[in-house]
Amino acid sequence: MFDRPAEPLFVLKGQRRDFQFDIPEEFVNTRFKKTQRKIQKQAGANILKIKKLDVLPDISFPKQLGRREQFSHFVPKHRQMTKQLVQMLMNSSDVESFLSTSAYCRDQINPFMYSYALAVAIQHRRDTMGLTLPHVPSFFPERFFDGSVFSKVRNEVFNAAAEDRDVIAIPRDFTASDLEPEHRVAYFREDIGVNLHHWNWHVYYPGVGGPEVVAKDRRGELFYYMHAQLLARYNFDRLSNNLARVQRLLNWRKPIEEGYFPKLNAIIATRVWQPRPANSVLKLSDISRDDMQLDFDILDLERWRDRIYAAISSGKVLAENNTYVPLDDYTGIDILGNMIERSDISINSNLYGDLHGLGHVAIALVHDPDHKHLEQAGVMGAVETAMRDPVFYRWHSFINDMFVAHKQTLQPYTEQELGFRNVQVVRADVETQYLDVLNEFSTFWEEDDFNVDRGLDFMGNGTVRVRITHLTHTPFRYLIQVNNAGPPRIGTVRIFMAPHFDERGIQLTLRDQRQHFIEMDKFQVRLQTGPNQIERLSRLSSVTIPRENTFRDPAQELNADAGEMCTCGWPQHMLVPRGKVKGLPADLFVMVSDGAGDQVRDPQGPPNTCTDAHSLCGIRNRMYPDRRPMGYPFDRLPRAGVTTLQEFLLPNMMVTPVVIRHTDGFAPAAPPTPTRFLRLQP
Amino acid sequence: MFDRPAEPLFVLKGQRRDFQFDIPEEFVNTRFKKTQRKIQKQAGANILKIKKLDVLPDISFPKQLGRREQFSHFVPKHRQMTKQLVQMLMNSSDVESFLSTSAYCRDQINPFMYSYALAVAIQHRRDTMGLTLPHVPSFFPERFFDGSVFSKVRNEVFNAAAEDRDVIAIPRDFTASDLEPEHRVAYFREDIGVNLHHWNWHVYYPGVGGPEVVAKDRRGELFYYMHAQLLARYNFDRLSNNLARVQRLLNWRKPIEEGYFPKLNAIIATRVWQPRPANSVLKLSDISRDDMQLDFDILDLERWRDRIYAAISSGKVLAENNTYVPLDDYTGIDILGNMIERSDISINSNLYGDLHGLGHVAIALVHDPDHKHLEQAGVMGAVETAMRDPVFYRWHSFINDMFVAHKQTLQPYTEQELGFRNVQVVRADVETQYLDVLNEFSTFWEEDDFNVDRGLDFMGNGTVRVRITHLTHTPFRYLIQVNNAGPPRIGTVRIFMAPHFDERGIQLTLRDQRQHFIEMDKFQVRLQTGPNQIERLSRLSSVTIPRENTFRDPAQELNADAGEMCTCGWPQHMLVPRGKVKGLPADLFVMVSDGAGDQVRDPQGPPNTCTDAHSLCGIRNRMYPDRRPMGYPFDRLPRAGVTTLQEFLLPNMMVTPVVIRHTDGFAPAAPPTPTRFLRLQP
Repeated sequence: MFDRPAEPLFVLKGQRRDFQFDIPEEFVNTRFKKTQRKIQKQAGANILKIKKLDVLPDISFPKQLGRREQFSHFVPKHRQMTKQLVQMLMNSSDVESFLSTSAYCRDQINPFMYSYALAVAIQHRRDTMGLTLPHVPSFFPERFFDGSVFSKVRNEVFNAAAEDRDVIAIPRDFTASDLEPEHRVAYFREDIGVNLHHWNWHVYYPGVGGPEVVAKDRRGELFYYMHAQLLARYNFDRLSNNLARVQRLLNWRKPIEEGYFPKLNAIIATRVWQPRPANSVLKLSDISRDDMQLDFDILDLERWRDRIYAAISSGKVLAENNTYVPLDDYTGIDILGNMIERSDISINSNLYGDLHGLGHVAIALVHDPDHKHLEQAGVMGAVETAMRDPVFYRWHSFINDMFVAHKQTLQPYTEQELGFRNVQVVRADVETQYLDVLNEFSTFWEEDDFNVDRGLDFMGNGTVRVRITHLTHTPFRYLIQVNNAGPPRIGTVRIFMAPHFDERGIQLTLRDQRQHFIEMDKFQVRLQTGPNQIERLSRLSSVTIPRENTFRDPAQELNADAGEMCTCGWPQHMLVPRGKVKGLPADLFVMVSDGAGDQVRDPQGPPNTCTDAHSLCGIRNRMYPDRRPMGYPFDRLPRAGVTTLQEFLLPNMMVTPVVIRHTDGFAPAAPPTPTRFLRLQP
Repeated sequence: MFDRPAEPLFVLKGQRRDFQFDIPEEFVNTRFKKTQRKIQKQAGANILKIKKLDVLPDISFPKQLGRREQFSHFVPKHRQMTKQLVQMLMNSSDVESFLSTSAYCRDQINPFMYSYALAVAIQHRRDTMGLTLPHVPSFFPERFFDGSVFSKVRNEVFNAAAEDRDVIAIPRDFTASDLEPEHRVAYFREDIGVNLHHWNWHVYYPGVGGPEVVAKDRRGELFYYMHAQLLARYNFDRLSNNLARVQRLLNWRKPIEEGYFPKLNAIIATRVWQPRPANSVLKLSDISRDDMQLDFDILDLERWRDRIYAAISSGKVLAENNTYVPLDDYTGIDILGNMIERSDISINSNLYGDLHGLGHVAIALVHDPDHKHLEQAGVMGAVETAMRDPVFYRWHSFINDMFVAHKQTLQPYTEQELGFRNVQVVRADVETQYLDVLNEFSTFWEEDDFNVDRGLDFMGNGTVRVRITHLTHTPFRYLIQVNNAGPPRIGTVRIFMAPHFDERGIQLTLRDQRQHFIEMDKFQVRLQTGPNQIERLSRLSSVTIPRENTFRDPAQELNADAGEMCTCGWPQHMLVPRGKVKGLPADLFVMVSDGAGDQVRDPQGPPNTCTDAHSLCGIRNRMYPDRRPMGYPFDRLPRAGVTTLQEFLLPNMMVTPVVIRHTDGFAPAAPPTPTRFLRLQP
């Protein structure tokens, strides 16, 4: 269903073009009834017969968005259409009618909206549990790869047999040059895995749909935390590249300094993403778009912002039923997350509006706020492309500031809330493969290929590989020694890392540094009485998905034995910030917290589905697997008297100074022993 | 050679894919040597064997522009490359080696540059005289049609057999809506025929190449006149749409108010044309582009401008050999034209620079003047797209102002220079088909289809028709009665038309109105003694090419019997400005001038090649067929004491008040007698 989304459903599908849907006549777009009958004769293909539907669903509303128009996750009208589609797909009584409903919609609905709604349904239906979500860069390559690739792809497909085809390499610097300082972190913003994560997060946590899709345990809090982590990681990479930390986008009446030219071309859509030239007087404007049935003013955004800050400062929000709900230590952040993002479970969307979403829209339409030029949105309009644009981080730094303001109203954690009696961390080191020093990370560049065949609509059989260059790091492991002077217990190991210096080269104070801690890993251990040696491999990180989930080949995807692949999660290759060639000093923080305060008793029992990146993505349809507030222990201000990270430490914590060293090349070239660490076990 | 310019030369070509070039092995791009051998086996095709070349030409310099990059006629480096190509193609000793040289270059050179250079060579070589130039919208549809067409085209080609394919209609309002006032004249700026004319004019009159290509009779003057006529026509259509006349772009330090989003997608090129948002602070910037080896400052443009105005005011220019050359009545304008455009025959390009060309470049690069964002030019960068952008007319109004300033230094025409003794125009009427009133023009909308197959690189056999809507008018004729009280003589009938009122509804004074006269026709008549009845059909106009030359089907193009089709010329369907629904009053000016002062004695004898649009395009490789200054009698200020058009009249002139009435629909629906006028002959 995801294969070549603009080609009709009845043509041959699959990597080898040997799979075909046999669809009821009434599902076929009248335009192609004739063609369909001709194609129907194809022999030798594996045919999947699609059952008729007793009643054809009414899709007239979602059909209002043209097949070739741009779909935006942030435009309320598009959200309402998506909601209807998701509910229809969720409500199909069994797999067979789910399949039929999907088939019926497929060639009538905008492919971007359809694929998103279908992915949401597959992710949330009980009878499709265990199915791996399709790999969105494969079927929508126009959203992920340099647009110039596609004319080269056509050239290869046209001129060379499959076995003779060249791999098409996308240069690392395709969107800008280093004359533009912001371009130094383009490898981060334009990383396939980073954008893939963002799309999948919004599939895991859609803002619209029925309660079984939206109303999830701590989704509002996760909205805050996931984005806060994105920002912390972005800032870490900015400091690695001698750029100052990102500035919040606070004054919406001033031009936006940063320009961005996405260079994504259109294959399925008819219009390209509009660029935003640098330093243009293009400041946010009041929006009046007949095509989206959308009108709002910058004053609306300002009013919502001010009401939200007022609610935070007064510690309570006014719910739709006209009662005040306190913003307490544990649920306050969750209420705020849903309210500011404006998901369907916002506590009062009339009063607090749709700040985050319509801010995306205002920025995405900055070049044509009134539809004068019939232009569609910029990349800020869609979750799979928004992170490419520098302004995304400026907008989200502003959004994050509201959450930070709320957290600052809370009492700092006490020593009791932070400590773990009789547990002491005595060693916390990082050992990187092939390196003979401890506590040094090694990053470098790596090439990987994608097979984009499934997204090459109307280009014939197109097994063409596209090669990208991305950041990566040498595998490493943590070596942690914990002394337990008490009885055997469960502990949660929490590993964070933050830069040691700010952009001026001055040591960060904890008040500041705490916002720059990126989560590296979190896992539970059983602590025996006495010394415990803990060893943990970097590829197991609770924030990442394995690299094969990012760089997978769609040809292997239908292999059912492989089990479900997690799709939401930070890409493993981006786990470590770039660092500097001469080494970037950072603080590695390791803490073992008391399992008694951490563990979640999920009434459904332990999860049986992918848990790879639970820190950022939770676990499907389950409770978030850590009872502490997300970001603990750095989400609140440090307790009175604590200024530096050192002063913050208790016996169950340790800080290790580490260095991130970057090699600006494709090294280390040939790993001598790919699976072993050179040093002995501790 | 022009067919599907990005596909290799050795694949099947032609409308029915039944034509093949057999090219020497050493001509094949190494990338495709393998493929070529496979394809070479094709049977049943008409094969044209290409002769080997004794010495392969050195094309390393023009090859520096990548195959998928943007070619600009205005970037000096690209011009130098074009010059080398044109000279190489012009210097091939015979047709066979010309063909071989073309074949050798074709798959190595940027297709946009190659096609332009090849068209110039075909236009200028003696042994290719009589060949019709290829129809550029057919082989580069991405430069002429709404970019959203191509995904629909792919859909049709993929899903429907040739006979089942839908025609793909481009809405009239695809680039903007009427919320944008400038959009009201988009039908003019984006007209296929108008842009086609501009490309072909620059093929007829290239600015670079050897002297046989550039140094033509009065080319500088024609540069002035053709553009002045474009502006007069554009202003006429602006007034028809309640828009003020275009403002000159004088202050280059201020933002450009008019935005433009071209919506042209890329098929062959890898990057789309960049838009320019409205009211952006994007003012022209100093250019420093390493990719084009081009650096110049706005101060340079300002210095050149000021030197040119100083030369005009002092009536002389300083030539490269350090002598002063006067700007006299007849050659002054020609010198200025070549100097301001900056063709290869500029009298002193060091001193007077490259004002017109680099102004185009500065505007085209306004979004990325320093290549920070690795972006290519906007539509102002190429002659086939520049006229789409409102700023084109603002820039050329400034350029035109310099020519006007020069013309104002000349003595006004005397009554003797304007008169024609004993000749009197006694009647000058317009009779429009199917109308029962005189002196009324009728304009309306019409649809026409293009076959874009030849430009659908890598899309398989793609006979798909694209339907556009354009302005047109009902055919008409002029009925003119001239009394000749002298002996039989030759007279030149000159027909112009201008709006009667300005944008405020106030009658134009002649000083102003003279710049708004559009040339409608010019032809010679033999005047008998006594009354002469002159009848002239609109389709014969000396400024237009026939409509079939604009809307031709490339399938019929190879029909050698058809003779040469003129390609340069204003499109017949745009001969009459739009007018207003309630009627736009205009002045039709008819003058018969003395053939003794008009006729040109070309040493080569009468022309044997197409002369359709000689007023704007001259005659190939011949002298311009009118000895008067172009624009005569309105190119100079009126003589002393003359304020209105009425006061300007002499007996050999007449002004008829006319009305241009527009029907905002596809009317008149069904012409009852397509070839006859309803009224009787006079």
